Amino acid sequence: MTQINKQWRIAARPVGRVEESDFDWVEEPVPALQEGQVLVRNVYLSIDPTNRGWLNETRTYLPPLPLGSVVRGTGLGVVEASANERFQPGDRVMGLLGWQLYALNDGRGLTPVPELGVPLTAHLGLFGHIGLTAYFGLLEIGQPRTGETLVVSAAAGAVGSLVGQIGKIHGCHVVGIAGTDEKCRWITEELGFDAAINYKTESVPERLKALCPRGVDIYFDNVGGPILNAVLSRINLRARIVLCGLISQYNNAGSPVPVNLGALLVQRARLEGFIVLDYVPRMMEAFPHLAQWYMQDRLKYRVHIVDGLEQAPAALNMLFDGANQGKLIVQVSDEPG
Amino acid sequence: MTQINKQWRIAARPVGRVEESDFDWVEEPVPALQEGQVLVRNVYLSIDPTNRGWLNETRTYLPPLPLGSVVRGTGLGVVEASANERFQPGDRVMGLLGWQLYALNDGRGLTPVPELGVPLTAHLGLFGHIGLTAYFGLLEIGQPRTGETLVVSAAAGAVGSLVGQIGKIHGCHVVGIAGTDEKCRWITEELGFDAAINYKTESVPERLKALCPRGVDIYFDNVGGPILNAVLSRINLRARIVLCGLISQYNNAGSPVPVNLGALLVQRARLEGFIVLDYVPRMMEAFPHLAQWYMQDRLKYRVHIVDGLEQAPAALNMLFDGANQGKLIVQVSDEPG
Repeated sequence: MTQINKQWRIAARPVGRVEESDFDWVEEPVPALQEGQVLVRNVYLSIDPTNRGWLNETRTYLPPLPLGSVVRGTGLGVVEASANERFQPGDRVMGLLGWQLYALNDGRGLTPVPELGVPLTAHLGLFGHIGLTAYFGLLEIGQPRTGETLVVSAAAGAVGSLVGQIGKIHGCHVVGIAGTDEKCRWITEELGFDAAINYKTESVPERLKALCPRGVDIYFDNVGGPILNAVLSRINLRARIVLCGLISQYNNAGSPVPVNLGALLVQRARLEGFIVLDYVPRMMEAFPHLAQWYMQDRLKYRVHIVDGLEQAPAALNMLFDGANQGKLIVQVSDEPG
Repeated sequence: MTQINKQWRIAARPVGRVEESDFDWVEEPVPALQEGQVLVRNVYLSIDPTNRGWLNETRTYLPPLPLGSVVRGTGLGVVEASANERFQPGDRVMGLLGWQLYALNDGRGLTPVPELGVPLTAHLGLFGHIGLTAYFGLLEIGQPRTGETLVVSAAAGAVGSLVGQIGKIHGCHVVGIAGTDEKCRWITEELGFDAAINYKTESVPERLKALCPRGVDIYFDNVGGPILNAVLSRINLRARIVLCGLISQYNNAGSPVPVNLGALLVQRARLEGFIVLDYVPRMMEAFPHLAQWYMQDRLKYRVHIVDGLEQAPAALNMLFDGANQGKLIVQVSDEPG
């Protein structure tokens, strides 16, 4: 039986927000399985800010995709057929499955989904790259100490919301920056952040001054841009800035942004880039802690599911509009029974 | 006998290059010595890029000076009179003596000049804050390893010229960036840098590409600005950028400069501010190494002396014009016999 694949391929390099015209929707039969190959049916696609950078012509931490390629994306799926002894039909796997219903893979890019007794979507979030990003980015680069002040941007986002909570667990004074009053209420009232700033309606410099009376020791930056400079003007001696993302810049990738380097110099502060791929081999250090905090209800977490592969381009724009509430996932097909 | 002091005081906040009108020249009797005080005759004033930042109204790593104050400056002098048991006439001391002939000090800001058997001026250079900046900035923040590529800006300057030589001693491939062909020849032919780029006549991005075929592992940045971005576009994974100075920015301090943060993120690189004051307590770790390399002729060094306190403002501008050749020092009065 030949399955019909559905794919989003890159038709043009997007400028700014993505448009449907930047993609081609292709339906065609899945090629026959070759020796060593695995056929995976995609169930969930993770939609992350980094996906936008992957569409550009410039190299990021992964090579650029040629025009005409299936859009790169992290997915979680189920093995439908296998000519590879490492995988059996029914296995649940993760990897760069791409924006498509079926992925043919030689097996080297597939990771078995560990049995953690959590919802499948959690493997794309708290118990996946999102949780690892928050855990290692904050603890390894940010190095929080009790009593320090931690500021988090995109604080209601998948990563930011975890970073703030892990900061609280480590005894920090945590201030989150988000884009709606609802998000600000959620991170303070539900997640236990000490304070929140709505950067769309409030003056970030003034609010930082009021809410961080002892200055800023750690800034977990997901956005770059003017908010970075507002925080830099409040940093303490030997502050650590975790450069985890530059969502404000992805739509015009590559153009240098103004940074108050004088503050970094004078405060002997450190600004360090972080990519979660480097820490994937250490995931089993993080998961027991994340699981424990999750069980203790000290780490809360929400998922925003968009239904249908057809919606993937629109879902990507939601991230940049701040329209999602929690970890954004596109459901491509039904969960295995 | 009452001595007549000569002082440069701050008359106005300079904009861009300093002008004589930004300073007042004052001659007045030195007040009588009070209990606990020390009267120091200034012999040499160190002229450093940081002096320019100290004239601004904004806080740097030291508080701003009120208008009317004697200009802050590091000096080396000789005790002329003392009402403080820690100091005797004839003692050679260093400290923030200021742009003046005589400094009255309560003794707490004075450090005895150690007996190293080197010229007095060396205590403002190789065996002073300059040597410590190069030594600790490169070794602690830059962490050079054999075979790595080190790029140094302001490479013919007092700090940069030492950084490149210490990099060579640690087995690095060293490329210096300077502003004249003479400086480029000096650092390659005399100091042993592997290559030099004249940023005024050559394309820095193109030359970096040619001269750093294996990318850049360490950038010792004394200037900020477009050269920083040119280097960032060539950095390797886990590169270290030592932010030691921002000479291109001091004349418009506080304004954020464009920085290619995307390169930092993608390469998981670190940009870290460095102020030598933090390492002064560790000076005795550095001096034996610096002395040994100096004796072995592996660390060369030159001093540019400008005669007369009257020339101090003009000397400060020389730094920003790239007009000095070596560590810039103003001679205020004769060396003690």
